Amino acid sequence: MRQAGRYLPEYRKTREKAGSFLGLCKNPDYATEVTLQPLRRFQLDASIMFSDILVIPEAMGMDLYFSEGEGPKFNNPLTNPQDSTILRTVTPETDLAFVMQTIKNLKAELPANIPLIGFSGSPWTLACYMIEGGSSKNYEKIKSWVYQSPQYLHQLLDKISTAVTDYLLAQIKSGVDTIMIFDSWGGVLSQNAFLEFSQPYIGRIFSDLSAAGYNHIPSISFTKGSGNWIKSLDQLNCSALGIDWTTDIGYARQNTNKVIQGNLDPVILSVADGDTVIQEAKKILDSYLKINHNFDKFIFNLGHGILPTANPDNVARLVDFVHEYTKR
Amino acid sequence: MRQAGRYLPEYRKTREKAGSFLGLCKNPDYATEVTLQPLRRFQLDASIMFSDILVIPEAMGMDLYFSEGEGPKFNNPLTNPQDSTILRTVTPETDLAFVMQTIKNLKAELPANIPLIGFSGSPWTLACYMIEGGSSKNYEKIKSWVYQSPQYLHQLLDKISTAVTDYLLAQIKSGVDTIMIFDSWGGVLSQNAFLEFSQPYIGRIFSDLSAAGYNHIPSISFTKGSGNWIKSLDQLNCSALGIDWTTDIGYARQNTNKVIQGNLDPVILSVADGDTVIQEAKKILDSYLKINHNFDKFIFNLGHGILPTANPDNVARLVDFVHEYTKR
Repeated sequence: MRQAGRYLPEYRKTREKAGSFLGLCKNPDYATEVTLQPLRRFQLDASIMFSDILVIPEAMGMDLYFSEGEGPKFNNPLTNPQDSTILRTVTPETDLAFVMQTIKNLKAELPANIPLIGFSGSPWTLACYMIEGGSSKNYEKIKSWVYQSPQYLHQLLDKISTAVTDYLLAQIKSGVDTIMIFDSWGGVLSQNAFLEFSQPYIGRIFSDLSAAGYNHIPSISFTKGSGNWIKSLDQLNCSALGIDWTTDIGYARQNTNKVIQGNLDPVILSVADGDTVIQEAKKILDSYLKINHNFDKFIFNLGHGILPTANPDNVARLVDFVHEYTKR
Repeated sequence: MRQAGRYLPEYRKTREKAGSFLGLCKNPDYATEVTLQPLRRFQLDASIMFSDILVIPEAMGMDLYFSEGEGPKFNNPLTNPQDSTILRTVTPETDLAFVMQTIKNLKAELPANIPLIGFSGSPWTLACYMIEGGSSKNYEKIKSWVYQSPQYLHQLLDKISTAVTDYLLAQIKSGVDTIMIFDSWGGVLSQNAFLEFSQPYIGRIFSDLSAAGYNHIPSISFTKGSGNWIKSLDQLNCSALGIDWTTDIGYARQNTNKVIQGNLDPVILSVADGDTVIQEAKKILDSYLKINHNFDKFIFNLGHGILPTANPDNVARLVDFVHEYTKR
C-alpha cells in the first residue's frame, strides 16, 4: 500500500515545492524524494514507488486534474460507449518517462535488500474513473455500460489492459522488483459482474507478463471489498492477494494458497494510541498464526491506503512491533 | 427494502405537499399514502412502512435535519465519549406516536394477505450517524470511540439498543407483522470490531423481543457488506438475513440455515432495460436453485435500497417475472 503521503510533514513540504499533486507525480526528483521519505523514518521491508493510478488514462488522452478536497477528476469523461476508439495507444517509455526515471532513481538510491514495488490500477478501476469522471457514489454511469453496452465496455477494458500490461512491462524493465494491481472499485460489482468485467482483465495482465518472460517477478492483486470472493481470486495467476481490513486474515488464509497481504484498518493509525495500534496488529498476527502456525506466506500491511490523518508515531510503533513479534 | 421513494412521481407529489422529508415521515396520513403507493403499482408480496431510521436518535434528543443533496445530519453530534448520558429515554408510544399511527392506518388499509414490515436502524448504524453527524467517508470519529473509548461506546450502544427494542415492541403492538433491522454501516468495521460493536446489539434486540413474548414475529437482519461474515450472522437469533448484491446468493445459501433475502444490484433498475433486468434476476434465482433445488427459505429482493433514478417500468417487470418464474 501507499507509504508516502500527507501524514508526513516532509511530504507536505515537497508537495508544496512541486506546486500540485500531478506536478509531484511527474517530477522524478520529487517523486523519488517522497518515495524515500517513509523509509528514512520507518524500518519498512519494501518500498512502493510514488505515483498515481490515473497517469495511464491521462496518457491515453484523458484530461486529468485534481480538485482540492474532491480528488481526481477528468474533464472529458467517456460518455458514449463508442468513445474508447478515441483513446490513444500508450508508449510508456516515452509517454510515462517520468515514472521510468523515478524507478531508475529509486533503484540507484535504495539499499539492495529493499525491493521496489511498481503498480497500476486495474482495468475496471481505471474505467470507473474514466466513465464516472471522478469518484462516484453508485457507479450508475459505468454500470449502464455493464448492463446495456457490455461489448463496448469489453472493448474499453481490452484497450486499458493492453496499456496496463505495457506500462508494467516498462516498469519491470526500468527496475521494479515486484508489481501490484490496485482494483479499488471491483467490490462495487455483483460477483457475476466482477467475474466478467474485473477479474479476467487482471488475470490477463499477469498472464501476459508471464508470457513475456517475467514469471519470476512477484505479483500482488488487491480488490477492495472482495472478502467473499477469495476462493475465486485464488484462481488468478499472481503470487499474492491483498486483503482489506473487513476480512479476518485467518479466514483469508483458509481460502487461498497464495501469499496474503494485510490488513490493519488504516483508520486505527489516525485515531488510536500506540498501545492500541499494537493490540490490533497483534490480533491480526494471532489470527494468522492460529491457522498457519508460522508467518510463512504472510505480508503484514494495512488493509487500504494510509490516511492523511495517520499519526507517524503510530506507524513507527507498528512497524517495530510487527518485526519484533514475527521474529519471536 | 424501502419500496416508496423519489423514483415514483406520486411520491414526489406527496413529498412536495408535506414540505420536507421529515414532515413526510411525521405526518401519518402522508406516510401511509407513500407506503401504499408502490403496492398500487406493483404486485408486491409485503409492504414496508415508510419512515426513517433516524427518528429514534431524534427522539433521544438529537437535532435532526435533512440538507438537500447531502442527506441526514445532526446539528449536535456526540463529540464527547461521555455525551451518551445526555440522551433521553424514549417512550415510543408518545415520542413516536406518528409511526404508531401510520402502522395502525396501514393495517386498516392493507389486504390481509399483505404483511406489514416495521423496522429500525441497528444500534451501530444509528451511533455512526449520531457521532459522525451525518454520512462519513472513513468513520474516523466513531472509530476513535471504538479504539480509544470502547467502554463509552458500549454505554451508548446499550442505551440505543434499549430504545430500539422499545421502539420495535411498540411497532409490533401497533400491528406490524415482521420486523427488520438495517445495519447499513456494520460493514465498515473489521470482523473483530463488528463482533464486538454491532452484531451483539442486534442479537440482544432480537432476544429481548423473543423474551417479551414475540418469538412468533419474523425478524430480518441486514448488514451491508457482510458477505464474508454470513457464518457468524447465522448465530443471530432472527429468522432471516438480508444479503447485499455483492454476494452470490448460492454462496449465502451454503453458509446459513436461515431464510435469506436478496439481492439484485439496485442500480440495474436505473440503468438497464427490462429484458436485462429479467436476465439479471434470473441469474440470482438460478444461483439459489443450484444449491437449494427449490425456492424455500428465499425472499427475492433488492440488495440495497431502491434509487431515486430507478425506472418504475423495470420494477413492474421485475416483480412480475419473479412471481412467474418462481411459480413455474
